[in-house]
Amino acid sequence: MSPRNPLNIGAAARAMSNFGFSELRLVNPYQVAFREARSAVRAGHVLARAREFPTLAAAVADCTLVVGTTAAGGRETQQPLRRLEYGGRLIRKRLLSQSAALLFGSEKSGLSNEDLAHCHWVMRIPTREEHGSMNLGQAVAVCLYEIRRDPNMALAQPDRKKRAEAGSLECFTTLLLDVLERSGYVHERVESSTELKVRRLVRRLDLSAHDAEVWLGILRQIRWKMTLEESPVTSSRRRL
Amino acid sequence: MSPRNPLNIGAAARAMSNFGFSELRLVNPYQVAFREARSAVRAGHVLARAREFPTLAAAVADCTLVVGTTAAGGRETQQPLRRLEYGGRLIRKRLLSQSAALLFGSEKSGLSNEDLAHCHWVMRIPTREEHGSMNLGQAVAVCLYEIRRDPNMALAQPDRKKRAEAGSLECFTTLLLDVLERSGYVHERVESSTELKVRRLVRRLDLSAHDAEVWLGILRQIRWKMTLEESPVTSSRRRL
Repeated sequence: MSPRNPLNIGAAARAMSNFGFSELRLVNPYQVAFREARSAVRAGHVLARAREFPTLAAAVADCTLVVGTTAAGGRETQQPLRRLEYGGRLIRKRLLSQSAALLFGSEKSGLSNEDLAHCHWVMRIPTREEHGSMNLGQAVAVCLYEIRRDPNMALAQPDRKKRAEAGSLECFTTLLLDVLERSGYVHERVESSTELKVRRLVRRLDLSAHDAEVWLGILRQIRWKMTLEESPVTSSRRRL
Repeated sequence: MSPRNPLNIGAAARAMSNFGFSELRLVNPYQVAFREARSAVRAGHVLARAREFPTLAAAVADCTLVVGTTAAGGRETQQPLRRLEYGGRLIRKRLLSQSAALLFGSEKSGLSNEDLAHCHWVMRIPTREEHGSMNLGQAVAVCLYEIRRDPNMALAQPDRKKRAEAGSLECFTTLLLDVLERSGYVHERVESSTELKVRRLVRRLDLSAHDAEVWLGILRQIRWKMTLEESPVTSSRRRL
């Protein structure tokens, strides 16, 4: 509805392209803004296909669902007001089989009561009450993201990375204990509580199989260097 | 990381304010851009508090979780890559008790491999593969929205509007049948199948108590006008 800033028209088009929407309709845009936006580099096919309408009624005539957006902190809307989390789900569902229109107002004043009367319901992005009004391009991006959002993806994904086997972790533990003893970090390896602490410390690293191999290599090298310095004559041990 | 466009710095700050984040940290920003953004009208307290750091390591030093963002269509990341739906949830959880940093790269090239090596994991906004790269300000808005999003709000809300009682709907049905007969839309009111069709038609309107009253008023007025024309002498019936 009556956008005046070519950057915002371009930003709306870019977000549409990012999230796979193609049908941009402008009602009564400021002509200079529309022309400048069309020449924007990144907005591509969406802007090329954008259509202009003289009235809102004409723009949404073929849609089975018309949803307005509002910052609506204090303003009372006459229509049902839904938060984006829920409204986005309803729109996603409708779009599976039918067409729906999502309306954004002009940068300055948003949608008028006349515009909102064309809507089946109104949607609000859950911003802070003290600063509800969003930049137009950002509001479009957030709404389209919510519509495309996949709720199943919010669940924990199966771990695709192979974790280290217990045998590797035990090998790591033995090597580490040896190095700790040689370095003087622990004095009494025979003290079993130390051994248990180190064993648990290693498990908490939650290493992948790959990283466990890397750490084993590091510890072997450190141990080799230490044994070398302890008995310099036996440098041939490097190859052991 | 090295933002160059004052509009993007301002847009990031505005989205932060919209969703209630306050700690903006810029690593090595283009000085002109930072100065111009500071003078932006709408970005307010977030930009006033923004801090500048010479290195990424210094900027995230006090954070217990560092998450990078990437368009990552093709590019292989060396770190775990999570979709925003899931990653946002992890960040939301961490923020309950600790600090977390969300990194965005420069407009031109995003985060470098050197930057990403500072991250615990990397997050991807679920854009189309063919057009993954988002505008910086829009990417910030979408990520912060997901972190603030309330999953419980996605469920259907209890209907706060009082629906019409069956008695009103039956009154509506009777009035409508009368009007349909007088208008000649139906010829045989006695035909019970017509009555059933109209009764079901009225129930499908799913009227609120308020709207049912409005429609009853409309139908009463229409019927009064019809009876008036049928028998002009009995105009006193208006008051019945």
